[in-house]
Amino acid sequence: VSALRTLLGVCERDRVSTNMRLKLPIICFILEIILIILFGVLVQYNEETDAKEWHKKNHSDYENDFYYRYPSFQDVHVMIFIGFGFLMTFLQRYGFSSVGFNFLIAAFSLQWATLMQGFFHGMHGGKIHIGVESMINADFCTGSVLISFGAVLGKTSPVQLLVMALFEVTLFAVNEFILLTLLGTRDAGGSMTIHTFGAYFGLMVTRILYRPNLDKSKHRNSSVYHSDLFAMIGTIYLWMFWPSFNSAITAHGDDQHRTAMNTYYSLAACTLSTYGMSALTAHDGKLDMVHIQNAALAGGVAAGTAGEMMLTPYGSMIVGFLAGIISVLGFKYLSPILEEKLKIQDTCGVHNLHGMPGILGAIVGAVTAAVATADVYGDGMKDVFPDVASGKVDASYQGGIQAASLAVTLGIALLGGLIVGFILKLPVFGAPSDTICYEDNIYWEVSLTVVSESFPTHFQEIPGENSVI
Amino acid sequence: VSALRTLLGVCERDRVSTNMRLKLPIICFILEIILIILFGVLVQYNEETDAKEWHKKNHSDYENDFYYRYPSFQDVHVMIFIGFGFLMTFLQRYGFSSVGFNFLIAAFSLQWATLMQGFFHGMHGGKIHIGVESMINADFCTGSVLISFGAVLGKTSPVQLLVMALFEVTLFAVNEFILLTLLGTRDAGGSMTIHTFGAYFGLMVTRILYRPNLDKSKHRNSSVYHSDLFAMIGTIYLWMFWPSFNSAITAHGDDQHRTAMNTYYSLAACTLSTYGMSALTAHDGKLDMVHIQNAALAGGVAAGTAGEMMLTPYGSMIVGFLAGIISVLGFKYLSPILEEKLKIQDTCGVHNLHGMPGILGAIVGAVTAAVATADVYGDGMKDVFPDVASGKVDASYQGGIQAASLAVTLGIALLGGLIVGFILKLPVFGAPSDTICYEDNIYWEVSLTVVSESFPTHFQEIPGENSVI
Amino acid sequence: VSALRTLLGVCERDRVSTNMRLKLPIICFILEIILIILFGVLVQYNEETDAKEWHKKNHSDYENDFYYRYPSFQDVHVMIFIGFGFLMTFLQRYGFSSVGFNFLIAAFSLQWATLMQGFFHGMHGGKIHIGVESMINADFCTGSVLISFGAVLGKTSPVQLLVMALFEVTLFAVNEFILLTLLGTRDAGGSMTIHTFGAYFGLMVTRILYRPNLDKSKHRNSSVYHSDLFAMIGTIYLWMFWPSFNSAITAHGDDQHRTAMNTYYSLAACTLSTYGMSALTAHDGKLDMVHIQNAALAGGVAAGTAGEMMLTPYGSMIVGFLAGIISVLGFKYLSPILEEKLKIQDTCGVHNLHGMPGILGAIVGAVTAAVATADVYGDGMKDVFPDVASGKVDASYQGGIQAASLAVTLGIALLGGLIVGFILKLPVFGAPSDTICYEDNIYWEVSLTVVSESFPTHFQEIPGENSVI
Repeated sequence: VSALRTLLGVCERDRVSTNMRLKLPIICFILEIILIILFGVLVQYNEETDAKEWHKKNHSDYENDFYYRYPSFQDVHVMIFIGFGFLMTFLQRYGFSSVGFNFLIAAFSLQWATLMQGFFHGMHGGKIHIGVESMINADFCTGSVLISFGAVLGKTSPVQLLVMALFEVTLFAVNEFILLTLLGTRDAGGSMTIHTFGAYFGLMVTRILYRPNLDKSKHRNSSVYHSDLFAMIGTIYLWMFWPSFNSAITAHGDDQHRTAMNTYYSLAACTLSTYGMSALTAHDGKLDMVHIQNAALAGGVAAGTAGEMMLTPYGSMIVGFLAGIISVLGFKYLSPILEEKLKIQDTCGVHNLHGMPGILGAIVGAVTAAVATADVYGDGMKDVFPDVASGKVDASYQGGIQAASLAVTLGIALLGGLIVGFILKLPVFGAPSDTICYEDNIYWEVSLTVVSESFPTHFQEIPGENSVI
Repeated sequence: VSALRTLLGVCERDRVSTNMRLKLPIICFILEIILIILFGVLVQYNEETDAKEWHKKNHSDYENDFYYRYPSFQDVHVMIFIGFGFLMTFLQRYGFSSVGFNFLIAAFSLQWATLMQGFFHGMHGGKIHIGVESMINADFCTGSVLISFGAVLGKTSPVQLLVMALFEVTLFAVNEFILLTLLGTRDAGGSMTIHTFGAYFGLMVTRILYRPNLDKSKHRNSSVYHSDLFAMIGTIYLWMFWPSFNSAITAHGDDQHRTAMNTYYSLAACTLSTYGMSALTAHDGKLDMVHIQNAALAGGVAAGTAGEMMLTPYGSMIVGFLAGIISVLGFKYLSPILEEKLKIQDTCGVHNLHGMPGILGAIVGAVTAAVATADVYGDGMKDVFPDVASGKVDASYQGGIQAASLAVTLGIALLGGLIVGFILKLPVFGAPSDTICYEDNIYWEVSLTVVSESFPTHFQEIPGENSVI
Repeated sequence: VSALRTLLGVCERDRVSTNMRLKLPIICFILEIILIILFGVLVQYNEETDAKEWHKKNHSDYENDFYYRYPSFQDVHVMIFIGFGFLMTFLQRYGFSSVGFNFLIAAFSLQWATLMQGFFHGMHGGKIHIGVESMINADFCTGSVLISFGAVLGKTSPVQLLVMALFEVTLFAVNEFILLTLLGTRDAGGSMTIHTFGAYFGLMVTRILYRPNLDKSKHRNSSVYHSDLFAMIGTIYLWMFWPSFNSAITAHGDDQHRTAMNTYYSLAACTLSTYGMSALTAHDGKLDMVHIQNAALAGGVAAGTAGEMMLTPYGSMIVGFLAGIISVLGFKYLSPILEEKLKIQDTCGVHNLHGMPGILGAIVGAVTAAVATADVYGDGMKDVFPDVASGKVDASYQGGIQAASLAVTLGIALLGGLIVGFILKLPVFGAPSDTICYEDNIYWEVSLTVVSESFPTHFQEIPGENSVI
């Protein structure tokens, strides 16, 4: 009886704690009001969005950065909200949360990222100047948070996720500042700053939030037929628009053009190796949707740093080809080990999609930078490696900086994830108990009319109505 | 027995009247043939789409308006066909009609809008000149019709919808002409011309088409799990591309750039207030998909007029924040009252997503216009407020015009909806009876193989086949 | 008993042959490695993607072709991967394969097409130069392969599809070379090169692969409610972005602008005639999802050749109007005849969507070319009909060339399909037997948890858990 009473108590505490009636409104309203105040104090239109400033100079309209970057921005935006959101709907009972929490934390993160990134590298006379490039950067930072979300998917409350986003965006901006501004690292598509950072941060958080009894929710931690189709919407959008992602903030002209094309071929090659590996590693040769949904994207991650460089098309294909192989092997053999031995419960397998391919991308970037020559880059060197072009450093040193940046990123991500993980353990944030993970019903009104009841009723009723006639 | 006989008679009449075998082909063919004839007589390529005219002058290719606006046009196009179409698939048994009728009436409306808008403000020497800007405007007008469609969703035949579109597009063009041409109102994103007009027109139509026995179809007027996921596709696309919507026809350069950015921040803020309010107004703190799907978009509607102005980023966020709050409150408390007291059966809650946020947007626009100064706008004033820049009116007068335009829009929408509502009551149009609303099976061939039967059979059969082996 | 034994033997052979454990990895890896080698030897960045070359000349950044074509490229990319992929998810048990095999063969084809098209019309000093235009062309060629995939959908293994793609891409490039380079044919949107070619190639392949006992899989060759909604995602994306498809590689300026607009109006008109015809040809006036999903797109196909010409808006609408009518009639009356009499089992009805509308488009193109005058085209003639502008041929001769090109295309497609069909019959490729066509479970791990079980369990469990409390 006392055991039951204890259980009751635990459950009741759980029931109370997962109730978001006050917690979620309070955090949403406080965060948004703080954002509005800080934007009011700190943020201004930049020269290209301000009516007065833009008209002071004698530009042609088509020189406005909007026309160079807005189409890429919208593609990135689709990746963030549709791509990440639907990719995670593969869970059978967690579709509302996957798309819905993705939506919430992305909407918060992009505002907070505008401030944090602006604070670290966008200040002009005490003000943060914003335009389409800062919007892309804010979406990029948001992407990193969503990668971490993938690691803890199904096991966190929306309040926890907002708190995680608050800290992760801040640390992202710090790491980005160290790499891009202090060290002069090149990482246009964010193999390091976005993917490696987001993955290892999230993996450390999920390690700290380790749930020993998670197997009680195991039956919900899988897909059903139609949930895998919804997830493919996310996959395909990520795949298609990754060329825009990697090229969105590179220099105008040949750089954007080349980056998009390198990524296009990297992804295509990655898809073939993913399909091959998926069939090869299955005992009956059947393709596994988990691999197709994730590993086929690794080529985009791995081309994130070197994509803007003169990687050559076949070089891009080699990178993508390897990324697909590594990623499938990770899903098949490494993830179970990480879970069992290291207690890392990585719901979406972000280590395989963003972690290892991110590291691969960083290494490829370092090597490609180290072998850069004036003969290959010509006057384009100043766009891709400004420090090399200006003579500040030589190419091999640039390569060394790239490699060091990977170490810095890993360090900040792991340490940050450690600290934030412990913060998220506070019971006040309303995490679900181990028995009700991967379940929309905790945080969402879910219709009690279910598919299997409504549909037959549906078609039985209609003849019924007619038969009355 | 005689009661049964009467019922039988009614039902039989219904059965006859909802049959679209002749009605739909007749109206489709007649409308399209009229469109083709009128296009043949009235419509010409404009200077930027005509092979001869474009090459007469010495332009650079990149000066063609196509490159300034086509990416935005395609985003708007996605909002019209995917956004509106899938947003309405939340109903459990009305997915075919939601996407399919949306598709039909949009395809008609954009052609008819080209003529009506061209007639009122696109004539050059007796001909309507068309290009990408007229295509965007036609899509905008179509959006207004689709908003009204949301109010009557599930209760109308496709023929009724085409007739409604025919009249609504015409009245839309009249209202737009009065505002933009006669009064000199600024409304680039259409808070008034598109959202307020479409919402109140549709609300009046659904009021006139009031169905006292609609509760007989109540069990179908709700969502199921996967239909809410389909609806989220619509929501997210509308949310992502709203910056393109509001900026699609603003002036080139800083104006498009600023409008897109203002809308981006308005929507982000709106999302946080929506989530907060949704949890706050639920007795158990659970999020309601209806709010997330709709209210999170109100920030785009509310930034429709002032988005192109120097609203400032934090001003945009305040507007979005308020719009989300108003919209959730509307869904929670106002809609039931409107239905019970005013007999307005608003299926999608367009009053909460387009009506009230549209009015908010109009008011914000009027205030922002009234406080415009040369100090803030500089030479950019001529793009945003040409009448103020030219000295024709002063800023506060422009603000007054903006406010008056809201009243004009409401008047024309309500009066128009009243008249069109009565026209739509004609039994010849084949509306469904009260018992079979929200039901695809009336107008679509629906497979009798249902999900719940096919899927288990599916997986049982496969082993079965193998076991034969 | 011996009959049973024979059956057993056949089935076992089937079971072995559909196992992809080695076949798929081998073909994927070999193809990709060959691609990488050939890219390494033959492919180079073109002047607009090469860092050194681009900076050699004194351009403005906005003159880079990337800004003219990349937004259109991304729209085409969406059509290829989401459009074609989801259009084919209408089958109840073949969603994974529809999206997944579409993904695989498209990722292969676009790489192979880069080489084949480059070899035939992109060589510069022994090297293939690539950039955004070659990427669009590669996607176009891929589209043709996916059309053929639609004809054989559900009846082929992924290995067969890759082999088909290998040959079809090659023949596509040959046909394209004959038309565009040797004959000087105009076909920017590919009514002939893409749609007619892909359709008749696929129809011949499916004819050769005729399965007399396919009716044993008949119960799976149909849609269920939600699979039709997934398919509508594909349809709507194809419809929306077809203006980008047809205009993606036309000349800069008025040409891209006009082509997009012509296609927009052609599609709108096509939608109305499709809805009308669908209701008219149903005995009960109910709309058929097959027509809406397919025939409404015929207007895009039919505007593929003449779209860039001075077709006029009303001319475009007439073309679209006719295309919709032809296409619905094809689905309703011709497809059953083709299957019964000619033994052409055309799963997606590509003859109705791509075959006949492609021929219509070719004819419209020939007529429009034949009547072209300097009075209408002015100096724009050199963009649309360079051979006419240069005086090499006159307009009526150009029209004759266009017509001849249709015949050439049909010849190469049918002959090519014949040969490739016989190659695909080799049992080593692992085609499914007649009893297990249209079935994901052959080639994919499909979760045994099914919708109808998981959902009720889901909602029953939750109260259960709470009631324990």
